[in-house]
Amino acid sequence: MSKLAEQVLSGDRRAVARLISAVENEPEKVQDELEKIYLNTGKAYRIGITGPPGSGKSSLTDTLTLRAREEGLSVGIIAIDPTSPFTGGALLGDRIRMQRIGLDPGVFIRSMATRGSMGGLCAAAGDAADILDSFGKDIVITETVGVGQSEVEIVRVADTTIVVLSPEAGDAVQTLKAGLMEIADIFVINKCDRESAGKLVLEVRSMLELKAYDDAAWRPLAIETSATKGIGIDELYNAVKEHKAYLEKEGELHAKRLGAAIRKIHDLVVSQVQRDLQSAEVTKELEKLAKLIMDGKLTPQSAARKIISKLKSRKTGADS
Amino acid sequence: MSKLAEQVLSGDRRAVARLISAVENEPEKVQDELEKIYLNTGKAYRIGITGPPGSGKSSLTDTLTLRAREEGLSVGIIAIDPTSPFTGGALLGDRIRMQRIGLDPGVFIRSMATRGSMGGLCAAAGDAADILDSFGKDIVITETVGVGQSEVEIVRVADTTIVVLSPEAGDAVQTLKAGLMEIADIFVINKCDRESAGKLVLEVRSMLELKAYDDAAWRPLAIETSATKGIGIDELYNAVKEHKAYLEKEGELHAKRLGAAIRKIHDLVVSQVQRDLQSAEVTKELEKLAKLIMDGKLTPQSAARKIISKLKSRKTGADS
Repeated sequence: MSKLAEQVLSGDRRAVARLISAVENEPEKVQDELEKIYLNTGKAYRIGITGPPGSGKSSLTDTLTLRAREEGLSVGIIAIDPTSPFTGGALLGDRIRMQRIGLDPGVFIRSMATRGSMGGLCAAAGDAADILDSFGKDIVITETVGVGQSEVEIVRVADTTIVVLSPEAGDAVQTLKAGLMEIADIFVINKCDRESAGKLVLEVRSMLELKAYDDAAWRPLAIETSATKGIGIDELYNAVKEHKAYLEKEGELHAKRLGAAIRKIHDLVVSQVQRDLQSAEVTKELEKLAKLIMDGKLTPQSAARKIISKLKSRKTGADS
Repeated sequence: MSKLAEQVLSGDRRAVARLISAVENEPEKVQDELEKIYLNTGKAYRIGITGPPGSGKSSLTDTLTLRAREEGLSVGIIAIDPTSPFTGGALLGDRIRMQRIGLDPGVFIRSMATRGSMGGLCAAAGDAADILDSFGKDIVITETVGVGQSEVEIVRVADTTIVVLSPEAGDAVQTLKAGLMEIADIFVINKCDRESAGKLVLEVRSMLELKAYDDAAWRPLAIETSATKGIGIDELYNAVKEHKAYLEKEGELHAKRLGAAIRKIHDLVVSQVQRDLQSAEVTKELEKLAKLIMDGKLTPQSAARKIISKLKSRKTGADS
């Protein structure tokens, strides 16, 4: 596996697929590869697309992709469904999408679902975006079902974040409370040909008007689209360009990516600690301490302090 | 705030509410309190209830609670909706539920929603269950929307886990793949008076039959209920009792709780590391390293190694 990064950088499509699989299944084994990958990132423009189930994120991603392809730009797509254990249905969607854009060599699509922890998925999604960036894709789109704070984290590393709503997805006010207002650079009201779309557009626009913005700050746009009917796609595409131009002019792109780099270090540290906790030696100690807890001789808090002391004195891969 | 734990242990209802709020908002400040709480846990029987949105978990929880109250047992309920930023609607449900069971002094209900990370919510939910256990509740029910792996984690600390399905929640096979088969001790097919309920019951039963179980292992039960019409509640209540008797006879209850104690130590260690990462000193270092990454002079991986060394040499609250 030691040459995967080089193969990705030399344009080997199958190596991309294999490295992303490795990132999903055994991230601890490919950190060296990812280090090489990372040194070759920063060229792709990253778009995050999120919204409630059924708002039409996938169709919108596909349509945006086709639009970018018209300009000769290559596109990488990471489609994440953290809710797939319950909602299912990803397979059919994948098949339709493969027919539309999957056969184009200028497009690389990859689906990911939760296997272990949400934190693990966040990290894997970020690494997959890095891989597609280093692979030379001009645009990398990360698309995820937005049902909670953790899913929102996944798109937070994007340069431009698009929040997709649709009339039947319910009350916009409910939908937008709790942090989503903050992350959207562009709101898309998809399925705009539906009857109740006008009401939703008004709700989103009045919410945006109520919010105070600094003079220099980006004011989120609200754009009506119908991905399936091809309505509003140019407007959306231009809105992304406009936001990109804003970020580059104001130095915001650098600031955003600096923030993403901080979060990345943070996540790598936490992952390393979690791996250390799973080592044979620490696992054995954890079991011993848990037995003392069960016997009423120790609290979890003092057990945690003992484990932290142990981790501190321990020589790990991180010391090399 | 230093006396909250004692007040909880002496039966002060308002102290319970205040300590749970503290656990949600500033867990780092109440670890000493939680240590006292923990030494008084282990008496309550813990039930986890999960399932897709709309399957009727809350009504079922309320009905089970009323049933337990008939036997004179006190009940604590922690109702978690990690999806609330998007789905909303919790308030109305809360009001209805308060009318049914909330005025009974033998019942304590508390709603929690995601504020920060999913991991934070998992920890807070576990602590809240400990608090209600130490407060003397005979049964503690943790109810959460099951839409992904992280939400499933919340109920994993339960002694008995109930997975609630309903006919309109969609394809049972899809619903049950990816780990839910593993966590359910009891499947409830709720809204059993609906037309398509029979099909769902058959699907769940045949899935259970297809799965191989050891002779001594618990075979999950599938029970039809209608929480709103009061159908199947006795059967469900008896199924929980049956599962409890199985756990106690086979020594499984001890094993389950040992596993929960191990996970608790694990989570406390990770939380401590995350707090250390947020200290002023480390934050400053993170920013410095992120700038080097942006200049192409460092990889996130080597930055993470530097931070880990720093954390190891650092004296934290954990060393006391």
